[in-house]
Amino acid sequence: MGSIDLNCDLGESFGAYKIGMDEEILPLITSANIACGFHGGDPLVMERTVALCKVHGVRAGAHPGFPDLSGFGRRNMSLSPKEVKACVTYQIGALQAFCSSASIKLYHVKPHGALYNMAAKDYKLAAAVCQAVREVDKNLVLLALSGSEMIRAAKDYELTYASEVFADRAYQSDGTLVPRSQKGAMIEDEEKAVSRAIRMAKEGKVKAIDGNDISMEADSVCVHGDGKKALAFVRKIREGLAVKGIEVSGF
Amino acid sequence: MGSIDLNCDLGESFGAYKIGMDEEILPLITSANIACGFHGGDPLVMERTVALCKVHGVRAGAHPGFPDLSGFGRRNMSLSPKEVKACVTYQIGALQAFCSSASIKLYHVKPHGALYNMAAKDYKLAAAVCQAVREVDKNLVLLALSGSEMIRAAKDYELTYASEVFADRAYQSDGTLVPRSQKGAMIEDEEKAVSRAIRMAKEGKVKAIDGNDISMEADSVCVHGDGKKALAFVRKIREGLAVKGIEVSGF
Amino acid sequence: MGSIDLNCDLGESFGAYKIGMDEEILPLITSANIACGFHGGDPLVMERTVALCKVHGVRAGAHPGFPDLSGFGRRNMSLSPKEVKACVTYQIGALQAFCSSASIKLYHVKPHGALYNMAAKDYKLAAAVCQAVREVDKNLVLLALSGSEMIRAAKDYELTYASEVFADRAYQSDGTLVPRSQKGAMIEDEEKAVSRAIRMAKEGKVKAIDGNDISMEADSVCVHGDGKKALAFVRKIREGLAVKGIEVSGF
Amino acid sequence: MGSIDLNCDLGESFGAYKIGMDEEILPLITSANIACGFHGGDPLVMERTVALCKVHGVRAGAHPGFPDLSGFGRRNMSLSPKEVKACVTYQIGALQAFCSSASIKLYHVKPHGALYNMAAKDYKLAAAVCQAVREVDKNLVLLALSGSEMIRAAKDYELTYASEVFADRAYQSDGTLVPRSQKGAMIEDEEKAVSRAIRMAKEGKVKAIDGNDISMEADSVCVHGDGKKALAFVRKIREGLAVKGIEVSGF
Repeated sequence: MGSIDLNCDLGESFGAYKIGMDEEILPLITSANIACGFHGGDPLVMERTVALCKVHGVRAGAHPGFPDLSGFGRRNMSLSPKEVKACVTYQIGALQAFCSSASIKLYHVKPHGALYNMAAKDYKLAAAVCQAVREVDKNLVLLALSGSEMIRAAKDYELTYASEVFADRAYQSDGTLVPRSQKGAMIEDEEKAVSRAIRMAKEGKVKAIDGNDISMEADSVCVHGDGKKALAFVRKIREGLAVKGIEVSGF
Repeated sequence: MGSIDLNCDLGESFGAYKIGMDEEILPLITSANIACGFHGGDPLVMERTVALCKVHGVRAGAHPGFPDLSGFGRRNMSLSPKEVKACVTYQIGALQAFCSSASIKLYHVKPHGALYNMAAKDYKLAAAVCQAVREVDKNLVLLALSGSEMIRAAKDYELTYASEVFADRAYQSDGTLVPRSQKGAMIEDEEKAVSRAIRMAKEGKVKAIDGNDISMEADSVCVHGDGKKALAFVRKIREGLAVKGIEVSGF
Repeated sequence: MGSIDLNCDLGESFGAYKIGMDEEILPLITSANIACGFHGGDPLVMERTVALCKVHGVRAGAHPGFPDLSGFGRRNMSLSPKEVKACVTYQIGALQAFCSSASIKLYHVKPHGALYNMAAKDYKLAAAVCQAVREVDKNLVLLALSGSEMIRAAKDYELTYASEVFADRAYQSDGTLVPRSQKGAMIEDEEKAVSRAIRMAKEGKVKAIDGNDISMEADSVCVHGDGKKALAFVRKIREGLAVKGIEVSGF
Repeated sequence: MGSIDLNCDLGESFGAYKIGMDEEILPLITSANIACGFHGGDPLVMERTVALCKVHGVRAGAHPGFPDLSGFGRRNMSLSPKEVKACVTYQIGALQAFCSSASIKLYHVKPHGALYNMAAKDYKLAAAVCQAVREVDKNLVLLALSGSEMIRAAKDYELTYASEVFADRAYQSDGTLVPRSQKGAMIEDEEKAVSRAIRMAKEGKVKAIDGNDISMEADSVCVHGDGKKALAFVRKIREGLAVKGIEVSGF
């Protein structure tokens, strides 16, 4: 039984630059992580993406990143926790305004790229993110890597949280992701990735790269929305989950 | 009798760059227009400025500008009304988040620089600003040039508004400001500027550059916070108003 | 007989954002106008685009724009001539460094978007552009709208210039382009556009929107490189020119 | 005997934001490291600063930094060597154009802030900086931390280099700077700092924080230009060097 959320990062286009297939992916997911103008996205894109979420009944979340448009927020930056907190507060607010305008609720916050990865490992940054979220609106849900420092901080700051898992990434025995630079980091076989998603959703378990089963909380599976292959993969996951009787619904 | 508000643009520092004397001016004013990161300001500066407003009991307002940091938002840009609306929505939200975090209320919105000047004359832009304000929060007050298209749009969109006047600027007989490029645009004589502020507050009148009296709504006087001379001038206005029994209080 | 240059704006991708089909268009043109980081382009993209120009023997030119990444340099901005001159100088230099690194010559400068359009009509801005070009390197060629204020300024500042014409745009009887907002501004019929290009190259004439023939200098035809249709159109122009014995070569 | 260069980072103002006392410091130094628009500086500021260098006969150098205006280039960023090379190339070129316009020579390159610190320790980044410098113009001099990986890379890439020392910073016994976070990192006593500058210039020696003398190449002393105290300190160093017969002149 059970259910799981499908989330996707989108609204990352900027001015004349289009990235992602937002219109196509939105009907297939339950939670949208919307870029807020720092690593991607701009006011018009945010407005349009919030409108699309409303149309498709998809939960709108803020997807704050580092102030690094030229690096798409994927480059580590040594911001202090104080700077991280202020940057996250700013971006949540910016998106919240578009949600208010569209009369929908901002539901969650998921940090982007390098900020996501750094805060997953560094408790001080994780705490800064959680403080920002909590102080803006204590009802916001933090969506973050299952088992990470961000989940630990969410508990400490009494935030509701949702644990994110990846169908197409290998895990180490301690529950962290195998770094992309390492062999076997990506699960290339689609069938295998779908089975892993199903098992994580159903049993809360996945086979780590060393062959041992590990346990993990799995509230939401991250899917990608760039390219036809990615869309096809999302459809496969949905079908696989449906066959097993696992509902796809917001966390 | 009567009362008038004193407003000042601040929170315009950016990263390592300091501009304005925010700490000194805040105890002297009743409304602060806080930059939102487009023409000036950054997340840390916004957080700090909102905290200072809370300490001094000054009303916090958003001061959205064009996306033109290198031009400090003072250069005309041909944004469409749709772009203006989205940019204003974004910036209001960003500041609102810092107000939420600090548990204070965002009170008003005053456009900055070239956006202020263009929207004062162009009804379509004025309407875009008012739509943005209204859709984010219909209780926000629009602070804008007395007698301008922005005030007209605020009425049309049923926004509460406050009419801004300038003590140190000359007016034309139609109630618009004499352009800075023109001779006599600035009232250099401080005593004269203070008298004008008092008369605008008390009688709602000012002598135009052609010598004729004109009527104007005057809810708030704009003062400057950069430089010791500006601070001294604000103190003089306060004294002058006090002598005449005009209370300085938020609109 | 005679010959004509085919130029195209490219190198406009930015970070994770890809725009244009640079690899496909480069073998078909003779002059590349490379974005310099203000309206589009970034250091890595500039390096790569210069390398592609070298491979294909295409002339590399700087394509400076307004500091307006979110508007892709297409929004009018009220920069002073002094600001325009400095912005153009900066961007030429940035591209020149990549040319030096690649041991190729920077050949020309063509302003982008709103800067191109504004400087085509405003002699002061045109003069600022020409001063920037001349002071950085007096051997650089200015590529600008045929018959515009930029060409006039190029003559006054003793710059070599090349007159640009558009195959797919209608002209007014005074030689200026019919504004895009006006009906008939775009020549949708590809055959007709190709014929116009050929006639401009061969005879220096084109039929204006009022039906009368006008004369114009035509050193270079602007082509587009975004989308398969644009590429197909460039191939058609090349074929058409070849049939008429007009050589495609750099100005 | 001997001689030493005095260098200072300047031209870091941006738009409406003024930072540093460039006009006052320029007559006192021999080499200026001019910001290139990434961490600070803008086209107009660069033009003005180059003009001031020309007036005062001060050597103009490029001072490239990370693309991080909000952090003033002081925050570590994980750029790849390829990205660093392209960013440095871009910035050198931009400044070079202003030097060409002013008919002065660009003399040297000194990386800024976090880029300076990271490349001082990471050979791959240092090599990327040196490749950029060499490919743009092999006659440019690299100014970098004495004994650092940047100096090592400059030798490998056959660049002329100048070793920079700090009068007001404590050194560790291996010749690296004591981190600012550590006690005793700053030499607060001005007299002591001046003596250290003189001894480094004259003997190529300085007492490390552990009390032992260490040797170091000292071609240029870094001085600061922000604040009256900094200016007074530069005057003291100049006097001290003069008394000891050490000439202040460009490396």
